[in-house]
Amino acid sequence: MRLTKATDLALRVVMSLAAIDPEPSTARRIAEEMRVPYNHLAKVVARLQRLGVVETRRGRGGGLSLTDAGRTASVGRLVRELEGARDVVECEGDVPCPLRQACRLRSALRRAQEAFFASLDEVTLADLVASPTGPVLLGLSGRPPSG
Amino acid sequence: MRLTKATDLALRVVMSLAAIDPEPSTARRIAEEMRVPYNHLAKVVARLQRLGVVETRRGRGGGLSLTDAGRTASVGRLVRELEGARDVVECEGDVPCPLRQACRLRSALRRAQEAFFASLDEVTLADLVASPTGPVLLGLSGRPPSG
Repeated sequence: MRLTKATDLALRVVMSLAAIDPEPSTARRIAEEMRVPYNHLAKVVARLQRLGVVETRRGRGGGLSLTDAGRTASVGRLVRELEGARDVVECEGDVPCPLRQACRLRSALRRAQEAFFASLDEVTLADLVASPTGPVLLGLSGRPPSG
Repeated sequence: MRLTKATDLALRVVMSLAAIDPEPSTARRIAEEMRVPYNHLAKVVARLQRLGVVETRRGRGGGLSLTDAGRTASVGRLVRELEGARDVVECEGDVPCPLRQACRLRSALRRAQEAFFASLDEVTLADLVASPTGPVLLGLSGRPPSG
């Protein structure tokens, strides 16, 4: 099964920021690094701002960076918030499924989805930007590895 | 996140057949009960036949029914076979993700997907067609409840 493209991109944004943290970046810069259209990235950044995961500061040393909440959130929490309201199957579509009032499949899939999120609750952003991913992200951002 | 519509429909086909088992049905009848276009359903039935989950018998008492393998398969096994080859995120798209050679997110998501399937390994078709779902399926098929 599939995460939405928006969730996929949001995770890559927070990974990019985590790899260079506490140095800030910008939405435009990350759009170039990830090779996605700026307007797609800007929407995702706006969502992450509303969720309190990233913030933008103006002025010198400003730019886009993780908030403390964003830095410490588990990947599971991020994915729940980005994906969470969607059901694993679409019961109410153009033609609603006739089983939708009394469906054991839907509850079984909800439990399975919860197992999916719980697995990601164990994973932090620090885990995601450990080697080799962090160095690749640094390379894309044009910054040298530290130390 | 979302299962594909094809997987969703395939699960509803096997549920429909499990609810009336061992009595057979037909693809056309299930398409009407599920209110989906016949050609969509026929494709899904062909897939389930290739997977050895359903079979069609000709002649008197013939029609579409579960195989023994289909009857006893866990929902997890069915979903793995229907969804299994897809990754949870699309790394190789029109614009491949620059992280794809060294990505900790992809491996974290694979483990989470495995947790999703493992949760469904505990669920059988009998579980899915227990009350209230089985009686709803019987009602849709125009057959009276047994006993």
